[in-house]
Amino acid sequence: MTSSDNPLAQTLGFIGYSDRLKQVIRRNGLWDGSRPENTAEHSWHAALSAQLLAPYANQPIDVDKVTRMLLIHDLIEIEAGDTFIYDAKGLAAQEDAELKAAGVVFGHLPQEQGQALRALWNEFEERSTQEAKFAKAIDRFLPLYSNYANGGFSWRAHLVTKGQVVEICAIIQDGSRQLWAVAEQMLEESVQKGWLLP
Amino acid sequence: MTSSDNPLAQTLGFIGYSDRLKQVIRRNGLWDGSRPENTAEHSWHAALSAQLLAPYANQPIDVDKVTRMLLIHDLIEIEAGDTFIYDAKGLAAQEDAELKAAGVVFGHLPQEQGQALRALWNEFEERSTQEAKFAKAIDRFLPLYSNYANGGFSWRAHLVTKGQVVEICAIIQDGSRQLWAVAEQMLEESVQKGWLLP
Repeated sequence: MTSSDNPLAQTLGFIGYSDRLKQVIRRNGLWDGSRPENTAEHSWHAALSAQLLAPYANQPIDVDKVTRMLLIHDLIEIEAGDTFIYDAKGLAAQEDAELKAAGVVFGHLPQEQGQALRALWNEFEERSTQEAKFAKAIDRFLPLYSNYANGGFSWRAHLVTKGQVVEICAIIQDGSRQLWAVAEQMLEESVQKGWLLP
Repeated sequence: MTSSDNPLAQTLGFIGYSDRLKQVIRRNGLWDGSRPENTAEHSWHAALSAQLLAPYANQPIDVDKVTRMLLIHDLIEIEAGDTFIYDAKGLAAQEDAELKAAGVVFGHLPQEQGQALRALWNEFEERSTQEAKFAKAIDRFLPLYSNYANGGFSWRAHLVTKGQVVEICAIIQDGSRQLWAVAEQMLEESVQKGWLLP
């Protein structure tokens, strides 16, 4: 089923391979805090959220392109794993690892499909388009929202401060100023409740 | 954050509510058979697979519409739960439950958004368009493929026969004859290997 002479078989091989994303465990928890979430279900939640929050983008966007971007934005974690966003050392090493991982992951696809997905992933990482800015805003907003909903599941576990969250998440406003305004309210309340260090 | 006077707050409330789909557990396993999958990660996998398999649709389709459909196709399981597709009694009761669930689930959204998603879900269920036929093909193909990959994780547990799978899955060919041809090979091999009853 995985001959490289047969593009359909190769694509099906990739679909089987991509299943591993369901086993990449993130630091963030579910909204009810019952367990950490995995990257596949996060990717679904992000793609769905983009569809629903598109009216709040700063500028008109091609929301279907944002959706495609969010479906594939974390595929490289199959090879590179998830690095906690507040782990600065990890993040520097992560960047190299992610570039290598992108080559491996998208290399599993038939050439044309692999190149198209790689280009979409590059656009997301570079945040040079309105679509990428909005996709990144959704990707940063959701973990913040989940921590707000579950009383700081990953913030408390890793002694995260409001300053750290603002540094990482302020780019939400590049995609949606309205969403960032909500995020700021959530952060203020989270500090008051003791879920996030001041 | 969930006032119905504020559409953004209401949409955010729905995003938090939709998180529960990560806790709906299906009978099918991951491709490596290490655990059952949940409906949120299945929805991600289906949306991604639709993007990759679109070239094999019987007719030209709006693949982004298929993707939107697959992102929301199982949301009603938050209220109705997942019924195993080879459980005929369960399926009859399921249909009523799903209609009621759709009212509840999509009713959480601001009216216009809720109506748009409900219409998309209806289209998927009715399989009246090429997009719905292809979306349904993907939704039926993936559990078959996962059972082929993991040696009959849910087939063996529930003593499923090839005839049952064919009855449920033959509609794959309405969306993609090429995908159905692959599915038939997988079924034949699965019977030979003893993962599926003849």
